Amino acid sequence: MFRTNTCGELRLANLGQKTTLAGWVQRSRKMGGMTFVDIRDRYGITQLVFNQDTNVALWEAANKLGREFVIQVTGVVAERSNKNLNIETGEIEILVSDLTVLNESKTPPFTIEDNTDGGDDIRMKYRYLDLRRNAVRYNLELRHAMAFETRRYLDKMNFLEVETPVLIGSTPEGARDFVVPSRMNPGEFYALPQSPQIFKQLLMVSGFDRYFQIVKCFRDEDLRADRQPEFTQIDCEMSFVEQEDVLQIFEGMVKHLFKYVKDIDFADAFPRMTWADAMKYYGSDKPDIRFDMKFVELKEEVSGHDFVVFDSVPYVAGICAKGCAAYTRKQIDELTEFVKRPQIGAKGLVYIRCEADGTYKSSVDKFYTNDDLKVIADKCDAKPGDLILILAGEMRKTQKALCELRLEMGARLGLRDKNVFAPLWVIDFPLFEWDEEVQRFFAMHHPFTSPKPEDIQYLDSDPGCVRANAYDMVVNGVELGGGSIRIHDSQLQNKMFELLGFTPEKAQAQFGFLMSAFQYGAPPHGGLAFGLDRFVSLFAGLDSIRDCIAFPKNNSGRDVMMDAPSVIDQSQLDELNLVIDIKN
Amino acid sequence: MFRTNTCGELRLANLGQKTTLAGWVQRSRKMGGMTFVDIRDRYGITQLVFNQDTNVALWEAANKLGREFVIQVTGVVAERSNKNLNIETGEIEILVSDLTVLNESKTPPFTIEDNTDGGDDIRMKYRYLDLRRNAVRYNLELRHAMAFETRRYLDKMNFLEVETPVLIGSTPEGARDFVVPSRMNPGEFYALPQSPQIFKQLLMVSGFDRYFQIVKCFRDEDLRADRQPEFTQIDCEMSFVEQEDVLQIFEGMVKHLFKYVKDIDFADAFPRMTWADAMKYYGSDKPDIRFDMKFVELKEEVSGHDFVVFDSVPYVAGICAKGCAAYTRKQIDELTEFVKRPQIGAKGLVYIRCEADGTYKSSVDKFYTNDDLKVIADKCDAKPGDLILILAGEMRKTQKALCELRLEMGARLGLRDKNVFAPLWVIDFPLFEWDEEVQRFFAMHHPFTSPKPEDIQYLDSDPGCVRANAYDMVVNGVELGGGSIRIHDSQLQNKMFELLGFTPEKAQAQFGFLMSAFQYGAPPHGGLAFGLDRFVSLFAGLDSIRDCIAFPKNNSGRDVMMDAPSVIDQSQLDELNLVIDIKN
Repeated sequence: MFRTNTCGELRLANLGQKTTLAGWVQRSRKMGGMTFVDIRDRYGITQLVFNQDTNVALWEAANKLGREFVIQVTGVVAERSNKNLNIETGEIEILVSDLTVLNESKTPPFTIEDNTDGGDDIRMKYRYLDLRRNAVRYNLELRHAMAFETRRYLDKMNFLEVETPVLIGSTPEGARDFVVPSRMNPGEFYALPQSPQIFKQLLMVSGFDRYFQIVKCFRDEDLRADRQPEFTQIDCEMSFVEQEDVLQIFEGMVKHLFKYVKDIDFADAFPRMTWADAMKYYGSDKPDIRFDMKFVELKEEVSGHDFVVFDSVPYVAGICAKGCAAYTRKQIDELTEFVKRPQIGAKGLVYIRCEADGTYKSSVDKFYTNDDLKVIADKCDAKPGDLILILAGEMRKTQKALCELRLEMGARLGLRDKNVFAPLWVIDFPLFEWDEEVQRFFAMHHPFTSPKPEDIQYLDSDPGCVRANAYDMVVNGVELGGGSIRIHDSQLQNKMFELLGFTPEKAQAQFGFLMSAFQYGAPPHGGLAFGLDRFVSLFAGLDSIRDCIAFPKNNSGRDVMMDAPSVIDQSQLDELNLVIDIKN
Repeated sequence: MFRTNTCGELRLANLGQKTTLAGWVQRSRKMGGMTFVDIRDRYGITQLVFNQDTNVALWEAANKLGREFVIQVTGVVAERSNKNLNIETGEIEILVSDLTVLNESKTPPFTIEDNTDGGDDIRMKYRYLDLRRNAVRYNLELRHAMAFETRRYLDKMNFLEVETPVLIGSTPEGARDFVVPSRMNPGEFYALPQSPQIFKQLLMVSGFDRYFQIVKCFRDEDLRADRQPEFTQIDCEMSFVEQEDVLQIFEGMVKHLFKYVKDIDFADAFPRMTWADAMKYYGSDKPDIRFDMKFVELKEEVSGHDFVVFDSVPYVAGICAKGCAAYTRKQIDELTEFVKRPQIGAKGLVYIRCEADGTYKSSVDKFYTNDDLKVIADKCDAKPGDLILILAGEMRKTQKALCELRLEMGARLGLRDKNVFAPLWVIDFPLFEWDEEVQRFFAMHHPFTSPKPEDIQYLDSDPGCVRANAYDMVVNGVELGGGSIRIHDSQLQNKMFELLGFTPEKAQAQFGFLMSAFQYGAPPHGGLAFGLDRFVSLFAGLDSIRDCIAFPKNNSGRDVMMDAPSVIDQSQLDELNLVIDIKN
């Protein structure tokens, strides 16, 4: 071992002790005949002292150390006169008697500090240096702890971690598969799993009873800021359970993680909200309930006042921003611009200021009397000093816009503290989602999701109203995970395929072996999957999942450090019986 | 929850208790007016009783249950008159008052028993049914326990589990890469990692200090019985360590697994053997030391007796099979046939019987007197009653053949008990391996392996004699894992690339970013990787790794259950800019 202690370990209790440390030169300061060098490793930083009077040669060697040199030093632990109480080793320093340079370093292209001078591109190209920064390493330490505690909890609950294959058959699940040409089976391809969904259901058929896996999944999608072509799921499934059992077990898991990783205790049961209520009151299936500001539907109250904007639309709703009556014209204009941005898409914004004197001032004073506005304000539970913001239009689109406005107001009002966590189960999702474009129903979760038994009767007559035994775990407006009770009856499964437009042949081709498996005694089962990347981001207070992934890819799916993907040799293509043919 | 208890849980202590169980029908026996049904789940088997006298309808329903039906029953725990002490629930039975068929089952294509009537092919096609068998599920429970205990140990030792990417650049490491066409980067490909070697070394450059990962790796090789295209490694790396530190930490890990998974304590340090000794005494770099029977080199003793077979070859060696002097002509012929098989390739076998009266009887009596044979026997430490078996030829080839003969004799003599475990570190591997065919040196481990400092002086003059800081963990003749101290000096690394025939351009193209990383302060580091599949197979006493993998592939790399790989849609090929062109 090149060291007797780590750079984060020594304290006043170690005074006088001889020690050997190894690590990187964080910085050095020459002050007259004394040179101070901070040596850093994963565990901390320790100050080294080199004294010209004690050993000139050693002092001169220390003066030649550059940033990020890898060094090994031996010395004695001494008390610092000038203590730094911000770091745990800040009361001691090492009086160095031996110095070995284990490796030199070129000057890094950016500073290895919490607040670095490196931009995103250069940090990604030199990711191995970026990972030296405490802020980045912390995210990965957190990730380790979360994965470990997840396993500890699930093991205790009798779940078995089973590895499912990465090279599988293509089973379209909505997104595009990555495929892998098979050399041994010319012209054929493996696919990389979008999730182990089918395998975990097979494991239930196999009687594994409780399965989990922390597993890489793959989707060849056009990437957004918080998507990666490969991502990690905590994938779980249980047999002989009803929805309530799944919610209990995994609420327990989330609480376990909060407790053992974040030291936060949730004594009470997590709140639950139906999907219908989530849409009605928050315009989202993943409401951020750190703050209230619920939607108030106002169509009835605003209608019949000759204001054509409100009269001509099916849906009018508002939110009440507490204490914002004093918003200036400029601030309200900003909000109007905010909702009119193409990605939000509202046509305009109506406001009502609830003045301190009990009167109202609105952008639609022409159409509504003070009494009319009071009716609206009362319905919104608005008090003097509050500001009501109203949007109108087609229902879903307007709910979505109002949701964004609500989140924006929450942020402006400081109601979205990253250190406050508000978990929520969203339940009773619709089984189907109507696609306007192709004019047919799609499975909202996936084709194996079980309808609520009491709603099965509407499968033919009114599929849109059929609710699923499906649930999502939402924290702070982030969907951490979701799942469902699965269909274990092959007749009902066939019915679902039919409703989803699968011909029997297509269903057979894609899911044939699963359907066969279900004929040999499938138990009732259900489960869910959490997105580990998002879960870690949430715990770390990050805006992007990229920062909690050791070697992420950029928005074009490239690893810029490794310069992957890349061209391959002609001989490899030949072996795989492939020819590249790039159209335009 | 569909049950109050599992099928492996109830005991005499639960007598009189009302219980609800859910599981599969293992078997049923009708005895007059009584029907006994065994219900099975992951946790065990419980006997159910249906009595015609108590409830005719229920009894009739029970008589209709087929094998593998999924049922739910409620009843009262009663004492069995006819106890089965082979199973833990064998002292009780359930007097059933309610029966629900949760799902029916077709008759499975093979019996769900420890000794099934299903052949390999049918069991693989219906793997989800094969996994119901206790014997198969046990292997996967063991696998879970081993992975979990590995993580528990390494977490305690301050290792961080870091996920490295699956979609990476192609970095040839000997074997062939699986590749993944990139839709977003036309004409370019990702590769699937053969190991996270480069990433773990980068993490050391990043100061992660102690890394591990239980991770899928991929090799597109022609498959043998114990190879799979995807396999799982316990991959580890540490900084600021010397070989001794790595051996200590991972000997600790192996001992931890033996203790917590197999309940076997290894109090003493594992033995260590140099590669040179392993080859000299066992003819293998992974000797099975459950039994002795070391090679004895006899060239000197056998030379000069006009026996041209021995005189004309560079290497003659024998093993002493204790107590086998009474082997019949037929048995010795069998052994001769064994070593002459093409995959072993010896030309013949010479034997010396050490008779009870102190005389010798050999197949070469024509050339050797009794005194000559005594010299050989004494060197082999053979006693009356022992049998000496001798092979001769080119050294490496003969050692390999004698190794196989030794293992065969060990098996015949019952010296290779699967419940006895003999761990061993093999150390001091050669750095290079000479390839006769292409007449040049290759890296025995990989190009990042560090030579022993004292041998660096021979890199140019005599590369073949340079030893590496490389080590393998071997148990019972199975290589469970191996690794090395890495080169952290970029000059030495460049030297290695040169010796291995990489042009600077080729080294730059393949490892450029790693070489760049090494210029920014790489710490001394080293590590190793264990093959989890083999590790589990060893603990489970299996002959093939396939049985400890939930959904394995066959020797053509096919998943016969899923029928993967398979053809993909033309539209998928078009999006990927690929054309299939199968040559002959």
